Amino acid sequence: MDFLKKKIRDEGVILSDSVLKVDSFLNHQIDPVLMQEIGKEFARLFQHEKITKVLTIESSGIAPGLMTALQLGVPVVFARKRMSLTLAGDLLTASIYSFTKQETNEISVSQKYVTPDDRVLIIDDFLANGQAALGLAEIVQKAGATVVGFGIVIEKSFQKGSELLRSRGFRVESLARIGSLEKGKVQFIEESEVVNA
Amino acid sequence: MDFLKKKIRDEGVILSDSVLKVDSFLNHQIDPVLMQEIGKEFARLFQHEKITKVLTIESSGIAPGLMTALQLGVPVVFARKRMSLTLAGDLLTASIYSFTKQETNEISVSQKYVTPDDRVLIIDDFLANGQAALGLAEIVQKAGATVVGFGIVIEKSFQKGSELLRSRGFRVESLARIGSLEKGKVQFIEESEVVNA
Repeated sequence: MDFLKKKIRDEGVILSDSVLKVDSFLNHQIDPVLMQEIGKEFARLFQHEKITKVLTIESSGIAPGLMTALQLGVPVVFARKRMSLTLAGDLLTASIYSFTKQETNEISVSQKYVTPDDRVLIIDDFLANGQAALGLAEIVQKAGATVVGFGIVIEKSFQKGSELLRSRGFRVESLARIGSLEKGKVQFIEESEVVNA
Repeated sequence: MDFLKKKIRDEGVILSDSVLKVDSFLNHQIDPVLMQEIGKEFARLFQHEKITKVLTIESSGIAPGLMTALQLGVPVVFARKRMSLTLAGDLLTASIYSFTKQETNEISVSQKYVTPDDRVLIIDDFLANGQAALGLAEIVQKAGATVVGFGIVIEKSFQKGSELLRSRGFRVESLARIGSLEKGKVQFIEESEVVNA
């Protein structure tokens, strides 16, 4: 995704060696055309997987999750971090720790919307330590459904999430893989370009 | 929006005389094709308004907001209910009370993403008492920008939000207007059909 990498290079703000802020197109302001391209790319990558549902987590996963679901022709479900009074009934839950926010959240999905027949593609904006991703996988597994894989917009490959998911046998497709944010510079891992060259 | 009304009739769950749960296609699981149609309809309704930005609020406003922004060819910004550590800087804020959740939230938008030149369309999933809508309008006005109007997916016309916004001179376009949820039945206000008949 050269378009995405260009956006990250041009608009990303490096707050520390581990924190990249992409508020101008992904986490606060959203670029809808970029999200559409991201949706098309995830749909292409997972096109043979007979996906029946996209699962993501509020709030920043919703935009890429929705666009992927639109392209795949399936519904998207977003896990909630806090319960609303109207989201009652039987819930599938998992506990996840956010290193960014320094807090543990219970995330939940209604049992009605992930069922044993489902083949689920999990979409998220960032993959860092993998806690949210594992929590979402746990929910799918509690439902008796199948995790087809993970579609990640930005992977911080220098943190442990990517290895953690791959070591458990999950397929992980990340559209931008960042090897380092050191010295205030975004260094991408360009392995696919190398393979294709 | 007959497609939307049919969805509400078929899948909406009436929890009380004032609470309608539409978790199967809008607030938890999302129907991407319906969202695309909603986006097209808002873009059509506001096509002459020279909109430069869509503003919505996490989480359930993001899907219809994103699809509307895609159709209009502008970015969408979602107001946050809780600050993340990476969303620092100058914030525009408003306090809103949620009758559903029975709590007051500070909502905020980075000053960078709503600027005095902006002509802003505010999109939200529900209009009930109008507190979120007024909070979003307050943020736009604090930025010195212009509120072009409100695009609401489901208006509960029996609550005071709709009248409150219209009495302040705001244009409000609601795709489904519910006159009553009494006796466990959704009654739509069908004024446009009457006018067109």
